[in-house]
Amino acid sequence: MDHTTQAKQQAAKAALKYVEPGMILGLGTGSTAAELIRLLGEQVAQGFDITGVPSSDQSAQLAQELGIPLSSLQESPVLDLNIDGADEVDPQFNMIKGGGGALLREKILAQSAKRNIFIVDQGKQVHELGAFPLPLEVVPFALESVVIQLQQIDLNPQLRLQNGAPFKTDEGNAILDADIRGFSDYQRLNSRLLAIPGIVETGLFLDYVDVLIVGNLTGAGILENPK
Amino acid sequence: MDHTTQAKQQAAKAALKYVEPGMILGLGTGSTAAELIRLLGEQVAQGFDITGVPSSDQSAQLAQELGIPLSSLQESPVLDLNIDGADEVDPQFNMIKGGGGALLREKILAQSAKRNIFIVDQGKQVHELGAFPLPLEVVPFALESVVIQLQQIDLNPQLRLQNGAPFKTDEGNAILDADIRGFSDYQRLNSRLLAIPGIVETGLFLDYVDVLIVGNLTGAGILENPK
Repeated sequence: MDHTTQAKQQAAKAALKYVEPGMILGLGTGSTAAELIRLLGEQVAQGFDITGVPSSDQSAQLAQELGIPLSSLQESPVLDLNIDGADEVDPQFNMIKGGGGALLREKILAQSAKRNIFIVDQGKQVHELGAFPLPLEVVPFALESVVIQLQQIDLNPQLRLQNGAPFKTDEGNAILDADIRGFSDYQRLNSRLLAIPGIVETGLFLDYVDVLIVGNLTGAGILENPK
Repeated sequence: MDHTTQAKQQAAKAALKYVEPGMILGLGTGSTAAELIRLLGEQVAQGFDITGVPSSDQSAQLAQELGIPLSSLQESPVLDLNIDGADEVDPQFNMIKGGGGALLREKILAQSAKRNIFIVDQGKQVHELGAFPLPLEVVPFALESVVIQLQQIDLNPQLRLQNGAPFKTDEGNAILDADIRGFSDYQRLNSRLLAIPGIVETGLFLDYVDVLIVGNLTGAGILENPK
């Protein structure tokens, strides 16, 4: 097992301690969230009682295979806890998410949860965001128009591809990956992007972290956000 | 013909004068936009050369029946002119749109146009917005969660129905109609709504009007927005 995977597992293991019996739990997407879902599966097999609300078809499938009881946001619109990974997190707990393309549902779950824990390996900690391109979920009807507008503010949008075709999100939208290096007022950037018609959601997660768990080879650091 | 229809026709007739040969023209949705599309159809039948980009399947169908050449925003991401109706417009040119459920594509077209003309009958002019409920386009996955959040800020969201089932937009989303009476800072309200994950777009059209044409029984008033 490589070192990053080990660190992800340590973060997931530390997050497990926050999960209490009976909880309605938001299940993130991506490799670190998948580690948590696997650990949850082991617990459920031993009789632990939780219900998961998955943030993607991918996580739903994994949870189902492991026998984790699932619900939907329709049935359970308020989550007790949401646990998800992140692609980048800065010292102010600002994050970029959406490398896996599930940013919209991930943000909906985060917004619907009483408490949010994000789990990362230490490689995801950065001084400023932007080495990882910012994913933007865009309705296909608006794609070319949004590209032009993003070019005008120098965000160099790149259409995400998968097997040579445009990547398609669970909601049927496209992803543009934008270069936000040089921007520092993330709140302002986010509002500006959301105001562009056709951009459904951005991968900027601001004000969402309650607890950040950073895994390393041998354990995990716990950072509480003093917000 | 009733008086309102006559006023809509007067507004559409006045808008026609802004359409020049060779233009790529955004075609709005709704009863007033339909009057314009009919007038354009007559012009095209007489050899007038324009290309329309429709904001809804409904307007696309009407334009096609009338023989108006159509393009898409994909092929023509910059429109020379966009002409659309509105449900309410205040003295500062703020508008509520989306009564017909096409707000997302309508706003995308408005944003993509070099110039925007809105055509209304005089009954659409209001002192403040809100007697007409504000349409919000919401991804089905987030519907119940968004309802709870809108209730928390007293917007009394109502799920729009059609033939007893949830209304479905051209993008496959739902519409919540919200009561914004009492709010006066529309920019702030709009940013706040767009920041709720799962709200794809709002029917608040701020800063979009270049020319407002208000039809009455015998003619139309032209209001240029001094922005």
